[in-house]
Amino acid sequence: MSARIEAEWIAVDWGTTNLRAWAMGAGGETLALASSDEGMGRLNRAGYEPALLRLIQTWLAPSRATPVVVCGMAGSRQGWIEAPYRPVPCAPVDGQGLTPVPTADPRLSVHIIPGLCQRDPADVMRGEETQIAGFMAETPGFEGVLCLPGTHTKWVRLKAGRVTAFQTFLTGELFSLLSRHSVLSHLMAGEGWDQQAFETALDAALAAPERTSASLFSLRAEALLEGLAPAAARARLSATLIGAELAAARPFWQDQALAVVGAAAVARAYASALTGQGRPVLTTSGDSAALAGLAMARALMKETT
Amino acid sequence: MSARIEAEWIAVDWGTTNLRAWAMGAGGETLALASSDEGMGRLNRAGYEPALLRLIQTWLAPSRATPVVVCGMAGSRQGWIEAPYRPVPCAPVDGQGLTPVPTADPRLSVHIIPGLCQRDPADVMRGEETQIAGFMAETPGFEGVLCLPGTHTKWVRLKAGRVTAFQTFLTGELFSLLSRHSVLSHLMAGEGWDQQAFETALDAALAAPERTSASLFSLRAEALLEGLAPAAARARLSATLIGAELAAARPFWQDQALAVVGAAAVARAYASALTGQGRPVLTTSGDSAALAGLAMARALMKETT
Repeated sequence: MSARIEAEWIAVDWGTTNLRAWAMGAGGETLALASSDEGMGRLNRAGYEPALLRLIQTWLAPSRATPVVVCGMAGSRQGWIEAPYRPVPCAPVDGQGLTPVPTADPRLSVHIIPGLCQRDPADVMRGEETQIAGFMAETPGFEGVLCLPGTHTKWVRLKAGRVTAFQTFLTGELFSLLSRHSVLSHLMAGEGWDQQAFETALDAALAAPERTSASLFSLRAEALLEGLAPAAARARLSATLIGAELAAARPFWQDQALAVVGAAAVARAYASALTGQGRPVLTTSGDSAALAGLAMARALMKETT
Repeated sequence: MSARIEAEWIAVDWGTTNLRAWAMGAGGETLALASSDEGMGRLNRAGYEPALLRLIQTWLAPSRATPVVVCGMAGSRQGWIEAPYRPVPCAPVDGQGLTPVPTADPRLSVHIIPGLCQRDPADVMRGEETQIAGFMAETPGFEGVLCLPGTHTKWVRLKAGRVTAFQTFLTGELFSLLSRHSVLSHLMAGEGWDQQAFETALDAALAAPERTSASLFSLRAEALLEGLAPAAARARLSATLIGAELAAARPFWQDQALAVVGAAAVARAYASALTGQGRPVLTTSGDSAALAGLAMARALMKETT
């Protein structure tokens, strides 16, 4: 028999493919964690409140509205309710723009954290602004560049507590499409990783990033003619795409303090690539940064209400 | 009531997604054309002969074996029977390596044209060698570079009737994955094409080919922030990928006689890009080149038997 959890407030990271929630105590401690695959990609507007309740209703007090702070794609135009982008330069998360969401269930008091936009060159983020705020709370005084690898990798300049500029690369989505749905997918079955192959291919990609599309086909040709191993093919695909990205992102990482915030495997790949270029890199978990950012937004809400 | 067709021989282009056959007369004329979607991707080894018969059996003489000459992925290891690659430098098609296929039906006498391979850098082609041979037959005396755009675009050096070197780019497959299965797909619904957007994006991609993955995400950001039109998004996706390829393939097209052999729409995009770079380009149909190459292989078979 488990003790009943009653959350002081609830933190939610609601992305395209996943929904994750943390039950938070009055002292800032995490009481429980729950997740489901009911991300934005599976929901229409009417589906958000039921999906959230399925995950968190056992954490709700019966007779008061529990604050729920949400970041991520739930705040997009195709999401639960649109939380309009805030233009950079600005603090990644502040009291402004937190968007209240009307709910049918009176036990919920939901707010969504807005994403950030940049006019020229046009760019957007949703969810990463919360990780950035959390990283800044966890790493006081950091000034420089953050890399947030993922489906859409973000490179972000931080100065005096503000995001001054950022740029998004589609690298993670390319990796996913190519490793799962292309002529290359059967070359890289399984989970192996050849670090030596990664490093060699990364150097080649950094030196000639325009050759991406030819380097990709060479994986197939080498598999046919020379029996290229799946672990090497997978590592070389990753290195080819990350190397091209690093070549384009060089102005971000060349001479700035540098941190990588993300899931373990992909953060390790980026950190390995950057340290290979002689750049020291601080690495930290994307989940813990998201939670810290959500807690910061919650604290700002309490101040302003 | 249609007259019954009896083919002197049958030409077959059997790719990953399509199967096409031409009934050929004794004087080299095309009597009929048939096609189906029973490409390599849908067939196991035992499925080839029935798929071919479904398409061509009405063209077969009852009492003799009709020659059938096949090019394309049917000759791959995962195809009907493996026709081992011939290493370059060599003529794209000659009497060597034509691989006989045992059939259950005595009315068939099938041979497959082998593909070409290159050891260093590793590369392979299957089907394009036949288009190259056909192009050479249609364009006597041509010496220079052929570009064969498609799912896997080939750049091919021709000298004194031989393929001396080639390089493959995965560009067409990237376009297909990104336009149909990525976060960008809903930005480019429909069939529109903005030629001005294509040209501007092509120049940008040629100047900074390493920025591909960032340029791709900018399509999404501009759609969200600035209402980018679908016809412009589609043209810019194409230009971004073709521009990066042209930057890498510059040694092929910079100062050589140049021809583009392929399907109309994609050949037009490549020709437009290359003429925009000040390069005169001869453009010709991939289908007619394939048929001419198959006819050349048939003629070589008659000489050697």
